[in-house]
Amino acid sequence: MYRLHCFAQSGNCYKVALMLSLTGVPWEPVFVDFFKGETRGERYRSEINELGEAPVLEADGKRMSQSGVILDLLARKTGKFGPRDEDERAECWRWLLFDNHKFTGYLSVYRFLRTFMKDTEPAVLDFLKARAERAFAIADKHLSKTPFLLGDKPTIADISMAGYVFYPVEETGFDFKATHPAIDAWRERIKALPGWKHPYDLMPGHPLPG
Amino acid sequence: MYRLHCFAQSGNCYKVALMLSLTGVPWEPVFVDFFKGETRGERYRSEINELGEAPVLEADGKRMSQSGVILDLLARKTGKFGPRDEDERAECWRWLLFDNHKFTGYLSVYRFLRTFMKDTEPAVLDFLKARAERAFAIADKHLSKTPFLLGDKPTIADISMAGYVFYPVEETGFDFKATHPAIDAWRERIKALPGWKHPYDLMPGHPLPG
Repeated sequence: MYRLHCFAQSGNCYKVALMLSLTGVPWEPVFVDFFKGETRGERYRSEINELGEAPVLEADGKRMSQSGVILDLLARKTGKFGPRDEDERAECWRWLLFDNHKFTGYLSVYRFLRTFMKDTEPAVLDFLKARAERAFAIADKHLSKTPFLLGDKPTIADISMAGYVFYPVEETGFDFKATHPAIDAWRERIKALPGWKHPYDLMPGHPLPG
Repeated sequence: MYRLHCFAQSGNCYKVALMLSLTGVPWEPVFVDFFKGETRGERYRSEINELGEAPVLEADGKRMSQSGVILDLLARKTGKFGPRDEDERAECWRWLLFDNHKFTGYLSVYRFLRTFMKDTEPAVLDFLKARAERAFAIADKHLSKTPFLLGDKPTIADISMAGYVFYPVEETGFDFKATHPAIDAWRERIKALPGWKHPYDLMPGHPLPG
């Protein structure tokens, strides 16, 4: 039984929750009260994750952090959505790094600041939006040539990059359907996979109180 | 013979150049004229790297991008600085992802905007600086307990996180010696490794013209 430390508004947590759901392994969520500061507290950092982040996966008596590492582990444990050879492994990690650094990297912070933190300087939002859009342009171009990032089959690279794309337009500020048709079509292909669920149906903590 | 598409001001390129220098394998640089827009051009994106980034490593007739992927490949090819077992492999990737997303992620953009782009909004610089400092605090705490990220021996995780820490204080705006003693001591340990060279002595393009 896997235990996933997570909360509904975190697309980085969703990457792992979605992988668990798509592979059909038994798991249970452990709610992380991010909005009350749990990940910034001493207890969380000393006992759960020194990086102060969610998700954290408990498996075989170990705690693991970083969604990319967890996805790689789950692919090997379940035999699903993993790379099939060394070349695909490099391809997977290329997109996982691109996602963490740029695609999710900018999209997640932009959404967080515009939706959950009301006092952000407009210049900061503009900066993050422009950076996210640069990443979207690269992904949209690539996905116009291939159904999934590595070809015909979905992999953990797709599951990672899908972390934040299912949140409502009102939260993300990005309407992929209108602006990035290849990302939108890819998103629909992921949504059609057996076991897919929306982040707000998969993890605890939604809606926010108040 | 490895060929590394790189330029002196890029710490992401330096990660790979440093790995090549520390492992002692023969390589040659291919200058990327980033400041004249080469990585943003159609030719670079269609022929060299669709992600529009440097570094790119040419090896065995293939072109590879993403410093983390390249470091992992070189560790396996040379038998040096790689993880020794599955647990270490997960640890390596945990820090590689943390570095790409947060440590290098914010430090590199902050340095770039403050030093090479003179028209950045102060609010954006403040935001990036604060985010970088959060990553430094996590790294400094970890490195106060261990000589290198994974323990007694340096790995590709250290080489990655060292990407931007050797650039002058005037460029980065961060004086680790004064503010983060554990990062500073770790940096000195890396500097003492046989084959270490400063980024400006290892890659072409420094100083900038004008």
